[in-house]
Amino acid sequence: MKDNLNIVPFVSVENMMRLILDIGVETAIAEIAEYIEADFRRWPLFDKTPRVASHSQEGVIELIPTSDGIDYGFKYVNGHPKNMKEGLQTVTAFGLLASVDTGYPVLLSEMTILTALRTAATSAIATKYLARKGARTLALIGNGAQSEFQALGLKRICGIENVRLYDVDPAATQKCAANLAGTGLNVTACASPEEAIEGADVVTTCTADKQYATILTDNMVGAGLHINGIGGDCPGKTEINRDSLLRSDIFVEYTPQTRIEGDIQQLDDDYPVKELWQVLTGEVAGREDDRAITLFDGVGFAIEDFSALRWLRDALKSSDRFADLDMIADPDDPRDLYGMVQREKERM
Amino acid sequence: MKDNLNIVPFVSVENMMRLILDIGVETAIAEIAEYIEADFRRWPLFDKTPRVASHSQEGVIELIPTSDGIDYGFKYVNGHPKNMKEGLQTVTAFGLLASVDTGYPVLLSEMTILTALRTAATSAIATKYLARKGARTLALIGNGAQSEFQALGLKRICGIENVRLYDVDPAATQKCAANLAGTGLNVTACASPEEAIEGADVVTTCTADKQYATILTDNMVGAGLHINGIGGDCPGKTEINRDSLLRSDIFVEYTPQTRIEGDIQQLDDDYPVKELWQVLTGEVAGREDDRAITLFDGVGFAIEDFSALRWLRDALKSSDRFADLDMIADPDDPRDLYGMVQREKERM
Repeated sequence: MKDNLNIVPFVSVENMMRLILDIGVETAIAEIAEYIEADFRRWPLFDKTPRVASHSQEGVIELIPTSDGIDYGFKYVNGHPKNMKEGLQTVTAFGLLASVDTGYPVLLSEMTILTALRTAATSAIATKYLARKGARTLALIGNGAQSEFQALGLKRICGIENVRLYDVDPAATQKCAANLAGTGLNVTACASPEEAIEGADVVTTCTADKQYATILTDNMVGAGLHINGIGGDCPGKTEINRDSLLRSDIFVEYTPQTRIEGDIQQLDDDYPVKELWQVLTGEVAGREDDRAITLFDGVGFAIEDFSALRWLRDALKSSDRFADLDMIADPDDPRDLYGMVQREKERM
Repeated sequence: MKDNLNIVPFVSVENMMRLILDIGVETAIAEIAEYIEADFRRWPLFDKTPRVASHSQEGVIELIPTSDGIDYGFKYVNGHPKNMKEGLQTVTAFGLLASVDTGYPVLLSEMTILTALRTAATSAIATKYLARKGARTLALIGNGAQSEFQALGLKRICGIENVRLYDVDPAATQKCAANLAGTGLNVTACASPEEAIEGADVVTTCTADKQYATILTDNMVGAGLHINGIGGDCPGKTEINRDSLLRSDIFVEYTPQTRIEGDIQQLDDDYPVKELWQVLTGEVAGREDDRAITLFDGVGFAIEDFSALRWLRDALKSSDRFADLDMIADPDDPRDLYGMVQREKERM
């Protein structure tokens, strides 16, 4: 055991893709959702240190740590809206899991793909607890990098059968529809958000522009709808019309963070919202009746990343989709770091 | 250029050791000191976000970010005093450099060894600016993992010729003396701190116990001495007698941090101290005269880690002591993360 503590398993992008393909996208999302649900149910014991953001004109780089007292995890993530025009990812991420007992890292992983999976898993959990029973039709507004994962998570976990797509860029819709072909979902490409939302039980908005936008206007939001508003994830960026917010029961991950980053930044600081984990533990009621409008104002929270890393660590117990990184100095005598360096001469 | 942005160069422990051996420990410390000096001279433009600490009964895990507006860097570091008894490092570390413009990581490295180098470089800078001219004799109290690097940094940068060693554990002194044999330093193993300090121009204390200790008592601190107190690096841990502090001109890295972590936690919150970078820029005077006692109360600051990572990135331009990590998802179409995963099937 001790002999290997200097070695940190690393999941590259290639290995993450292959692991997901081994397991299946839908199954991976469903498994991650189980880890998130388990962690949401023990929410109060987590260290909820605020994320640390370094802002620049071009974007933001954030470190997002949390701990349950046994494991410690953090995610590095950037947000650079201008990147897409340069052919780069708007958001890239990697993460680390460490042992609280020793402080030694135990897993390093790409998290761009893993974040898409955990975001889909979280929307699916919210939908499972908040949407009307028997919801079968999803309007998916914003058909970018998140969209297919959202659709497949809702299919697997919530029984969604029909997906109605809309994006300001028809090429994005075409890409999403092509990717979802053969997954068992009935996919309809729509020419407007109004058309997409026709007959929908659930709407997921995952648009990317960094600005105040109104993807959902008030007349589009009918009785009984459940909305996952997951694209409004930074200050100055919203997706949902204020009047619709006022008509909705609003559920969030962690209130102090969502007040700054979520759609509820449009509302007063004391406007009542409920936290999703409390619905899972039964402390708070979910949907009141079939005519209620429920909104999950999702911004992504540290615990979800932590859950995803825990899932990954466990998934690697029966997979070799990782490499060994020699990341931690491990001298035979902890006080002899210098001697360790010098003795390397003999091996060169 | 763009084609390689998904690849992050990674410096393993093995590659770090080999790079340091290629360059030479003393030269590496001297080069890193130049990077730290350059960054200290432009100190005000750095983002001085506080470090983010996650405390547990066993220790602490910290994320330490900073940025100069062009590069962004952070270090992960733990501090677990009980680790040594289990044959583990008390402190392990790794770090990352990223581009502020794109948010993409550009370098990942082990930082246990690199931190020892930058700590030695920082003590040497302090000594260069604060010790008496002609200082030739160093008392090195605490002969653990930091000690050889401290001695060699002071030799190279400040002209130290004689090193007098003391540690509560004679085995540590023996180890340090053996490691320094053949480096050109005259090394004397001493039986007490009082003996070690005889004739010393400079004292460096780098002891590791997590407690209030008094390595230097007041009668040991004579006129003209320069002290690097670098082992007192967390709340509740100090090395230097309070009366000696009161007789010294005190220099720190970043005052708000050192008031919490440094030896000056023994003094009032408004006790006057000076910041080392201001001595470099000439804004603040260094040593007043040959009888003054100067103390560098070093705790380690984010900018030093940043400088060390900048040095490493530049050193790798003429070295192949790194590996390529496939850490960043880089789909041809940034909106088609799902399609990228699916296309990996064909390569499996």
